[in-house]
Amino acid sequence: MAAGIAITLDELVQRFGGEVVGQGTHRVDNLAPLDKAGPTHLAFLANQKYLPQVESTHAGAVLISPVDLDKLNKRDGSNFIVTPNPYAYFARVAQAFIELAAPKAVPGVHPTAYVDPAAKVATSAVIGPHVTVEAGAVVGERVKLDAGVSVGRGVTLGDDVHLYPNVTVYHGCKLGARVIMHAGAVIGADGFGFAPDFVGEDDERTGSWVKIPQVGAVDIGEDVEIGANTTIDRGAMADTVIEANVKIDNLVQIGHNCRIGTYTVIAGCAGIAGSTNIGRHCMIGGAVGIAGHLTLADHVIVTAQSGVSKSLTKAGMYTSAFPAVPHADWNKSAALVRNLDKLRDRIKALETARGEREGDKSGGT
Amino acid sequence: MAAGIAITLDELVQRFGGEVVGQGTHRVDNLAPLDKAGPTHLAFLANQKYLPQVESTHAGAVLISPVDLDKLNKRDGSNFIVTPNPYAYFARVAQAFIELAAPKAVPGVHPTAYVDPAAKVATSAVIGPHVTVEAGAVVGERVKLDAGVSVGRGVTLGDDVHLYPNVTVYHGCKLGARVIMHAGAVIGADGFGFAPDFVGEDDERTGSWVKIPQVGAVDIGEDVEIGANTTIDRGAMADTVIEANVKIDNLVQIGHNCRIGTYTVIAGCAGIAGSTNIGRHCMIGGAVGIAGHLTLADHVIVTAQSGVSKSLTKAGMYTSAFPAVPHADWNKSAALVRNLDKLRDRIKALETARGEREGDKSGGT
Amino acid sequence: MAAGIAITLDELVQRFGGEVVGQGTHRVDNLAPLDKAGPTHLAFLANQKYLPQVESTHAGAVLISPVDLDKLNKRDGSNFIVTPNPYAYFARVAQAFIELAAPKAVPGVHPTAYVDPAAKVATSAVIGPHVTVEAGAVVGERVKLDAGVSVGRGVTLGDDVHLYPNVTVYHGCKLGARVIMHAGAVIGADGFGFAPDFVGEDDERTGSWVKIPQVGAVDIGEDVEIGANTTIDRGAMADTVIEANVKIDNLVQIGHNCRIGTYTVIAGCAGIAGSTNIGRHCMIGGAVGIAGHLTLADHVIVTAQSGVSKSLTKAGMYTSAFPAVPHADWNKSAALVRNLDKLRDRIKALETARGEREGDKSGGT
Repeated sequence: MAAGIAITLDELVQRFGGEVVGQGTHRVDNLAPLDKAGPTHLAFLANQKYLPQVESTHAGAVLISPVDLDKLNKRDGSNFIVTPNPYAYFARVAQAFIELAAPKAVPGVHPTAYVDPAAKVATSAVIGPHVTVEAGAVVGERVKLDAGVSVGRGVTLGDDVHLYPNVTVYHGCKLGARVIMHAGAVIGADGFGFAPDFVGEDDERTGSWVKIPQVGAVDIGEDVEIGANTTIDRGAMADTVIEANVKIDNLVQIGHNCRIGTYTVIAGCAGIAGSTNIGRHCMIGGAVGIAGHLTLADHVIVTAQSGVSKSLTKAGMYTSAFPAVPHADWNKSAALVRNLDKLRDRIKALETARGEREGDKSGGT
Repeated sequence: MAAGIAITLDELVQRFGGEVVGQGTHRVDNLAPLDKAGPTHLAFLANQKYLPQVESTHAGAVLISPVDLDKLNKRDGSNFIVTPNPYAYFARVAQAFIELAAPKAVPGVHPTAYVDPAAKVATSAVIGPHVTVEAGAVVGERVKLDAGVSVGRGVTLGDDVHLYPNVTVYHGCKLGARVIMHAGAVIGADGFGFAPDFVGEDDERTGSWVKIPQVGAVDIGEDVEIGANTTIDRGAMADTVIEANVKIDNLVQIGHNCRIGTYTVIAGCAGIAGSTNIGRHCMIGGAVGIAGHLTLADHVIVTAQSGVSKSLTKAGMYTSAFPAVPHADWNKSAALVRNLDKLRDRIKALETARGEREGDKSGGT
Repeated sequence: MAAGIAITLDELVQRFGGEVVGQGTHRVDNLAPLDKAGPTHLAFLANQKYLPQVESTHAGAVLISPVDLDKLNKRDGSNFIVTPNPYAYFARVAQAFIELAAPKAVPGVHPTAYVDPAAKVATSAVIGPHVTVEAGAVVGERVKLDAGVSVGRGVTLGDDVHLYPNVTVYHGCKLGARVIMHAGAVIGADGFGFAPDFVGEDDERTGSWVKIPQVGAVDIGEDVEIGANTTIDRGAMADTVIEANVKIDNLVQIGHNCRIGTYTVIAGCAGIAGSTNIGRHCMIGGAVGIAGHLTLADHVIVTAQSGVSKSLTKAGMYTSAFPAVPHADWNKSAALVRNLDKLRDRIKALETARGEREGDKSGGT
């Protein structure tokens, strides 16, 4: 982790909140785990089982929750920043140290970049090598466009947006403040829609698939992060919408006219077909497939590799994936599944025979 | 949708076919749904249940089939364009309005683009910023290469091809007229082929995977559309072939030496392993996986997330995916599937017992 | 396949090993199958069933194993290169012919490329159009960076690395000698990690996902090949590691902090979640999903589309995918799977009834 810039606990609290218990003037210059930290390090306690380590740590200060602080037997001479969520606090401070240590990007347009004269780029923006910004685009304050990024006509990029190398944003799309898109991601490609216009049957068939124009765009809220090589299609008539605080992993596909509710997270390789509406605070596992034109309620969790083919109207966890087992065992189970109707028929036959016997019985043996 | 350019019904019929019923000189300047259309709008009827809306619409004209026109009770004073496929007609007109309204791209090579002196580029082509066109490439009339596109040695691009930003076409590949490739798609990367050349067993193993040279290319027919970040590998010896009118969605993988038959559509996140031959007019659902060296007949439909591990020699719909259910229910079913052999054994035991009883019985109660 | 440069069998043996049986001065200029080869062609025998073709071939020379050579009835006047693995030998020679025939890339930096003055690029490297090489990067001998490649701050590229167009390597990552990355692949994007920092419940919830800084990098060994549009994330604290000789297909996702053991191959569309450790010599099938924080032993094979949710501690083949069957048949089976508990209950009822009968019996009917 980056190091070198020392900062007082008081300054941290000013910036990130919380309360100092101990010496606010103590300086830290990096983060470290409790058992490895030294006097200039900030450590954190997120899990009660490490409480004893807090008592023995050499850390300059420890991020701790009020509840856990009360549990300490010994805290004399130690420094704390008390916060309800030490793990999130740690993440924020770590990010700040990284930014302090990173080479400062110089605002301005790289000589190899192409910015259309009819685009509007904030002077604090950093436009990298071989970037393209087309006419009518609006690029906000401190936006960072890395090498090879392509920003289409009329795109709006909010303040502090960061697009990593070779990202493509198609014309007319909007990205809210602080959106991060990783390399190769594509926003606003045409949705997959074609009207059949065929004449004749089978091998004699002629005619074509007629492209349905996709005239919506993609509207992405603030603080959204989008993974590498992920694709989000533009809407057919209205916009595809990704609400604020949504986090999307790599190689995810989101079809046209979808809406993804705020705070929802989508893991890698998931695919969501067109016009599906996912609620808020949902968790979509890796490689999940969701059919089109469905609605998922808020707080729905779909576990990895499951397939959703009907709307899920109640919060809760949903699954349809089998875990891998030794190949021979699987083949045995799979054959039985294929022939489940025969097993059922054998049960039926036994039930019938029993019924007859019962009849026999009552009939008076 | 774009607006502003008014066009008469007669002009539409001249360009797109069909027949005017009513005033051919009436002008429309945009498209709208039946219930929202005004006198300068063109609406369409694709579904009989909206027939009553045709009678009450304020649209300047309605696209309608001959059969539906006959069903109308009231049509005085209304204008129609009669066509067997109003939805496809709508799509074509909508596309035309979009093109009329879009800013005209100026033919020529952008100053930041690099075109090798030994490439041949039509003067009507639009070569965008930071594009690379290598030696021996042939770029057809009105081709549009967006920012950051890379066209390799000896590539042929037919007339009216449109490659969106950051598309890569490897050396020697051919794209037919009107092919559209969305951003980040990659055509012609090496197929995945390695010959094992190992010495020794297990942890002592040394040696290497020897790369099998991939000297075929990719041959893409006319009117093919390829989604964002989709990858189609070059053949090992012969070409990978995508026939005319095939439509492929985002994040699809097609292995080396595949052939995809004309009119087939492949939805997002599908993966097709090498040397597989897919027929004409097939529909491959989202996230479907198809093993290598298989043949799928014409008119095969594979539903989303299914896996194909054997050739499918007859037209029809095929499936192997379970829909997600509440997690606890699934776990119960999954445990039973794992132990299906035990259920079967219990049925067998009951059958044996019954056989014995039957024996008892016949033996003389 | 490329042709034109004739080379003697002695020269081949000098370069690729093996032993000449016959005339070492015989020249070949290309490769061909046994049944099509002429006197200037080199053919190979990898499968015993083609032994008769060796006796009738017109090839100038045949690559053959010692065992198969002994089985030949007739070999007078023929030339052979004897090697334990003719298929791998063929692949190596084919690759050499391709390289001989390919246009020679001229070392140097293309005038449209941007190389930071603080980067170090070998003079034998070929830096293509619109490439970006950032400060602190070290680019080895004969490295080839194709159009639009982006190499981040402090990246190290070993000798003979080849990055195809529009590849992105994030800051701090290391690629060993001879690594090949196909177009659009992304190495070193941020891993997917966020700490919840929410206040309130359900729809009233506010707060945010706090980004966990990803300060590790990706460390890729020698002779690794990575497919088009594949993504490999950087580690959170330590590095993500891809060991030497690993081969990865297109559209694969590898999460942060994974380690992939040497010689392992991963087929297209597979996804591996974070912190998973895959052994050596494993084969991961297409579209396989592997959960995070697992360990797979050496020599594990996971068949296509299977899902791994627990560590696999023993070598062997594992599966959890069903093959597609006609849709109606599948629906019947799927319904029975959903109701397996009812089938089980019916079996239980039959067993109970039988028990009672048995009781009746012994009790004295």
